[in-house]
Amino acid sequence: MADVILVLNAGSSSLKYCAYDAHGDALKLVLRGSIDGLYTSPSFRASDASGTEVEARQWGEGTELGHGGAVAFLADFLRGHGEGHTLVGVGHRVVHGGVRFTQPALVSEELLSELDTLCPLAPLHQPHNLKPIRILAERRPELPQVACFDTAFHRAQPEIAQAFALPASMTERGIRRYGFHGLSYEYIASVLPGVDAGAAAGRTVVAHLGNGSSMCALVAGRSVASTMGFTAVDGLPMGTRCGSLDPGVILYLISELGMDARDIEDLIYRKSGLLGVSGISSDMRVLLASDEARARLAVELYTYRIGRELGSLAAAAQGLDALVFTAGIGEHAAVIRDRVCRQAAWLGVTVDAAANASGAARISQASGQVAVWVIPTDEELMIARHTKALIDAGAR
Amino acid sequence: MADVILVLNAGSSSLKYCAYDAHGDALKLVLRGSIDGLYTSPSFRASDASGTEVEARQWGEGTELGHGGAVAFLADFLRGHGEGHTLVGVGHRVVHGGVRFTQPALVSEELLSELDTLCPLAPLHQPHNLKPIRILAERRPELPQVACFDTAFHRAQPEIAQAFALPASMTERGIRRYGFHGLSYEYIASVLPGVDAGAAAGRTVVAHLGNGSSMCALVAGRSVASTMGFTAVDGLPMGTRCGSLDPGVILYLISELGMDARDIEDLIYRKSGLLGVSGISSDMRVLLASDEARARLAVELYTYRIGRELGSLAAAAQGLDALVFTAGIGEHAAVIRDRVCRQAAWLGVTVDAAANASGAARISQASGQVAVWVIPTDEELMIARHTKALIDAGAR
Repeated sequence: MADVILVLNAGSSSLKYCAYDAHGDALKLVLRGSIDGLYTSPSFRASDASGTEVEARQWGEGTELGHGGAVAFLADFLRGHGEGHTLVGVGHRVVHGGVRFTQPALVSEELLSELDTLCPLAPLHQPHNLKPIRILAERRPELPQVACFDTAFHRAQPEIAQAFALPASMTERGIRRYGFHGLSYEYIASVLPGVDAGAAAGRTVVAHLGNGSSMCALVAGRSVASTMGFTAVDGLPMGTRCGSLDPGVILYLISELGMDARDIEDLIYRKSGLLGVSGISSDMRVLLASDEARARLAVELYTYRIGRELGSLAAAAQGLDALVFTAGIGEHAAVIRDRVCRQAAWLGVTVDAAANASGAARISQASGQVAVWVIPTDEELMIARHTKALIDAGAR
Repeated sequence: MADVILVLNAGSSSLKYCAYDAHGDALKLVLRGSIDGLYTSPSFRASDASGTEVEARQWGEGTELGHGGAVAFLADFLRGHGEGHTLVGVGHRVVHGGVRFTQPALVSEELLSELDTLCPLAPLHQPHNLKPIRILAERRPELPQVACFDTAFHRAQPEIAQAFALPASMTERGIRRYGFHGLSYEYIASVLPGVDAGAAAGRTVVAHLGNGSSMCALVAGRSVASTMGFTAVDGLPMGTRCGSLDPGVILYLISELGMDARDIEDLIYRKSGLLGVSGISSDMRVLLASDEARARLAVELYTYRIGRELGSLAAAAQGLDALVFTAGIGEHAAVIRDRVCRQAAWLGVTVDAAANASGAARISQASGQVAVWVIPTDEELMIARHTKALIDAGAR
């Protein structure tokens, strides 16, 4: 039997997981996969560290496996797979840690109660993130669990970067800029010293460009500003989210178009961004392969807005020493990186076309004033590290 | 009798005016003033070009002079004042010219009908702006009138700078970034060649910092981006407006705090910004004189957001050759200019403390890479020029 740390990322209808060898500091990935369609037609997959599928299973249409069934199935699967895996701890991705959580936290009943109170701040994610934590706390109370927050890394930002210009009574109710994708930025900040010591000590903007997209300015490895605000809809346009939007637009949608809060949520979270502008797809690969003018417009708006936010974040960092691309689009869409770098020439950003096209780690020109890197993110490993550290600290 | 061009800026309860000598190209200011409290306790003032009050009048509490009475009183006053003034044309500040108006326009019945359709885009201002135009069109149909739009100057922006990442159906309904304060920026762009030919030909960010605050990036004198969006609440924090706000905040205010559109409008237009953050005043002078921490926070947030937007606008302009401060705070608050310049050192912005404190036109250091100027704006003169030009063109 091998001891593993399990990392869970629970959504409304899916449970993603990674299992890491808990021995030593390397935290070697053992298995990863997901259970999708939890309440409709569940399907399970598992791959090994090389990406080779080692197991797949389908339940029938209409099966309600649910979060509880999925957690139970996964625990059984791990116990029985190969020589068998024993869970020594579980780390969870939790979108919201509010104002108080600047670090991951060991799960307790008190913690869960507090995290429940944050559900109104992230109603689409927080309740689902908390489900498997509760289920495991009931079924396996002796198993250490750790909640890792997407907001925690940004709590290092100066107060002024976290503030809206609203009355203090609103700020006290928790209406402020939280920033998200914090586990991704924290991972990048953790590996940056090994990649580029100067960038790690200096002013770096990280562009986490995926289906959800945001950017973060780091100074000496700490977040000083980010594009996402109170919610994960703010900042850059994304697959289906609009990004920054004049609040007056929302009032207009209500008073002139007769929309209600639910209609508007649907519009700005699920029908906007790349999908809304193009009318074609939320998938950058589809848009880049399209000849249609509205696909080009969507891509152009995406890169333009990255360029504007890069200027704003450079202001927050008081300059720019390095730019890092990460996440799906950032790691794989060379043409997006190329356009972003060319637009940022005024900041001293360059791009080496051959290095960029070939998937090199450093894609700026040797003479470039700003180093440009492509660094794959690994939020799950970040969660596993936090989980191991808190378990080890608890055992001491 | 002297021929004059009258410039009107009508709000919900006030009518501001300037009268210019219509002869020659200089458009010398003859009189300026306002009629306030139109529907409650009207008061009239007139000053000459030197600022010396030449007339004042009060009506009794409860008098409903209204826009009609105010326009009639003002016309009578001008006819009778000094040697008498004959109106040869009237220019109006109109907040919204929609997508179509990229230039001022001579007033006709068709124009008024079209401008009426834009009222939902600016319900707090557009209907009031149009009132005196209609009144004069009825009473003095032979008198040429010109509508000058606060949005028109920004229509030169690239489409991408005007776009939200919303579905095309929303953009077609007119939901896009219009930008405002266009007459102020156009005025600055018109005088910049005489002040700094390099800046006029290059990349200049103008900070219009008043009770309403916004910023605009000019490239070769044309607007390429601005901070205000669909409405005048977006962008920088202002006296009582919040500026940029995550649209998710609005949904939260509705679903969690039970606010309706009217409550929210009141919050983000009238209870936020400098007033909301400080809880003390919307007046920058009061806040700068205060020792209270929340007054300092409001001022700090204001300058921080200017710094962030400066970076974003420099990105739109692909660099920065000059920075111009204008409007009430921009022209008079040396300490705000000082802080903004120091925060922007990373862009090559400098400040000459003595020049800044003494009210010099150029406040950057001689060796500074970015020229920094203080240029008083004059939106009324810009309207008078447009009005004269269109009348002269019509007479040819």
